[in-house]
Amino acid sequence: MTSREDAAALDAADPLAPLRARFELDEGDRIYVDGNSLGRLPLTARERIAQLVDEWAERLVTAWPDWIEAPSRVGDLLAGACLGAPPGTVLVADSTTVNLYKLAAAALAARPARRVLVTDAGEFPTDRYVLQGLGDVRLLESDPVHGPDATDVVAACAPGDVALVCLSLVSYRSGALADAHAITRAAQDGGAFMLWDLSHAAGAVEVELEAVGAELAVGCTYKYLNGGPGAPAFLYVRRDLQDELRSPIQGWFGQRDQFAMGAGYEPEDGIARFGAGTPPMLGLAAVEAAVELVGEAGIARIRAKAAALTDLAVALGDERLAPLGFELGSPRKAVLRGAHVSFRHRDAWRICQALIARANVVPDFRGPDSIRFGLPPLYTRFVDVWDAVDRTATLVAAGEHHDFPAELARVT
Amino acid sequence: MTSREDAAALDAADPLAPLRARFELDEGDRIYVDGNSLGRLPLTARERIAQLVDEWAERLVTAWPDWIEAPSRVGDLLAGACLGAPPGTVLVADSTTVNLYKLAAAALAARPARRVLVTDAGEFPTDRYVLQGLGDVRLLESDPVHGPDATDVVAACAPGDVALVCLSLVSYRSGALADAHAITRAAQDGGAFMLWDLSHAAGAVEVELEAVGAELAVGCTYKYLNGGPGAPAFLYVRRDLQDELRSPIQGWFGQRDQFAMGAGYEPEDGIARFGAGTPPMLGLAAVEAAVELVGEAGIARIRAKAAALTDLAVALGDERLAPLGFELGSPRKAVLRGAHVSFRHRDAWRICQALIARANVVPDFRGPDSIRFGLPPLYTRFVDVWDAVDRTATLVAAGEHHDFPAELARVT
Repeated sequence: MTSREDAAALDAADPLAPLRARFELDEGDRIYVDGNSLGRLPLTARERIAQLVDEWAERLVTAWPDWIEAPSRVGDLLAGACLGAPPGTVLVADSTTVNLYKLAAAALAARPARRVLVTDAGEFPTDRYVLQGLGDVRLLESDPVHGPDATDVVAACAPGDVALVCLSLVSYRSGALADAHAITRAAQDGGAFMLWDLSHAAGAVEVELEAVGAELAVGCTYKYLNGGPGAPAFLYVRRDLQDELRSPIQGWFGQRDQFAMGAGYEPEDGIARFGAGTPPMLGLAAVEAAVELVGEAGIARIRAKAAALTDLAVALGDERLAPLGFELGSPRKAVLRGAHVSFRHRDAWRICQALIARANVVPDFRGPDSIRFGLPPLYTRFVDVWDAVDRTATLVAAGEHHDFPAELARVT
Repeated sequence: MTSREDAAALDAADPLAPLRARFELDEGDRIYVDGNSLGRLPLTARERIAQLVDEWAERLVTAWPDWIEAPSRVGDLLAGACLGAPPGTVLVADSTTVNLYKLAAAALAARPARRVLVTDAGEFPTDRYVLQGLGDVRLLESDPVHGPDATDVVAACAPGDVALVCLSLVSYRSGALADAHAITRAAQDGGAFMLWDLSHAAGAVEVELEAVGAELAVGCTYKYLNGGPGAPAFLYVRRDLQDELRSPIQGWFGQRDQFAMGAGYEPEDGIARFGAGTPPMLGLAAVEAAVELVGEAGIARIRAKAAALTDLAVALGDERLAPLGFELGSPRKAVLRGAHVSFRHRDAWRICQALIARANVVPDFRGPDSIRFGLPPLYTRFVDVWDAVDRTATLVAAGEHHDFPAELARVT
């Protein structure tokens, strides 16, 4: 059996261990394994928010010449830190939902003879809903643990009517990491654009947008990037396509020579044309600080630690949880996973509630039967993984979850 | 001639004067008359942002059950404080640009036989651009000082092909206040929806959305509402239309029973269906505090003071600026104005630059020839108006603006 001392030894050898002190941590003994939903607060993000508030108070409108560059400046920072993308291809603006809408609509407009959008039946809800609003959606029925496969995409594109394939690089439910190269090639061979949703991948695994060659990507910044609740999201458009594609939302922040306020909309060159309204500066200030920390850690080290943390969770799951009726809901091989692990159990919902209420462990639940343990490498210790599994096993062995209602209620 | 003592006497009698101390003010002698572009920082907004950062650090994802209500909670607050709208009709989310896109697209979809969108040639750029992206735009050529008139709207709607009329209640350039009742009736008689852009009106004048009966409205919160740079904007949908209209951006924050994450998009009842992605909590925290201050002051008192401040600016303009070649670019009657006054001058751009660089006055410039003095009633003193005009007159009389380039450069 793996002991807590074994986990502590892994922490002692962890090159990223010092970065944990760069976050605001819990006073008590809470084990937070839900950073895949909302990442912790970096100390520098608190500072940068306060600094932005000072700028607002002191400089007022005269600060805009500096602020106005933030969406592309933070985009470039993010591109280099963990997206494998060149400068001038990433913009931080709006929500993931709105960015997905903009890029999917742009792709459809660029493929006027094609009306079909392909995604997965298990894709994150907002992605499915946005696509349903834009055209005819064809759903893949992928393996629920391993996610979509290139052969699924080849088959879906075979009729020749697909404008866009939209998939998550890391599945929100199982944590499965898709084969970006093979799937992108399958979509492109089928005549479609490839759009990756990187929400559960950015800051967790190495994303190689330029090498992969995908046309489009979007993602959120409040999970593994630690940008704060509802922080502005990002979008990526491959450079050679930027001047061909147009956002359906023709806002003044995508307009050429914006402050000339000309009569007609004429989109700016480059990635800036995918902007819309005035940038949310408080949110951008936090994201900038948070992404700097990812850059400092290095995405290769983050990815290596994610593999080690999730390996430990899988091993402990086999030892302690499987005997209690849990089943692994994530791929077994680290190379096929992001930075979270799912365990499936028919009482998942009440176990999740019991863990929060009785054991001071905060995981999250995803229907119908998954408990996710999110293990962001910047601040998660190996002993946290051990404690989370230990408390879960102890609680379930004692039957404490039976004190909680089985019915589903709203959860975030 | 009006003396500084006359202005000081008005301050002494001003019931809103104590509210100035609720904002962070300038250390030196800067006269800030650009709150129509970016409002000052309320002390409570700084507190509320810090509190939200604490909640992020301490409660992490467990705070979401409280946070998730913020878009409608702050919307209700705003509706009651200064929009004359009932609860359940206003949502604070996204940018003004994105909200305008959502509502204009919804209106077009609800009038499938009509393709034309009407706005003014002098309308704020992002509004014109967004509409150009959605359908055929018919432009009014309204009086540049007084703005659109109901007869303009009647004529534009006469062909029977207009789906939507979109106009600013207060013009961003001249400050003219449109006749909301007459124009709304003209649009509706023409079979079109009426959408008011309240960006320069909310927190400056009494808006009576329910009494006016307009179908739709949007607006920004960082001007007279003091929500901070790039703060989330608002949208209004008349209650009886909410279940008929649909946002084109089908996001999970508009989905019924959101966390059931069902297969198909089914819009939530009521105003919530016009949400899209995860709410920007830092921005919402600031807006909530800022709108509370507007509610505390009372929009009727704010509006009365706006009239008095702009009356003083007009009178001083006649006395001190007209002899120097300035022309009033705003309506003369206070009842026809919002809370800013424009002065036109052929050297407006260099005067504006000189005021900032030499006279420590911060107005703003709007092409081709307007200097705007924004006079937000919550923190602007009558002596500020006097000082702003006095410094302008002194600077121009001395010809100091000739030291600055005449060419237009980017300004915010």
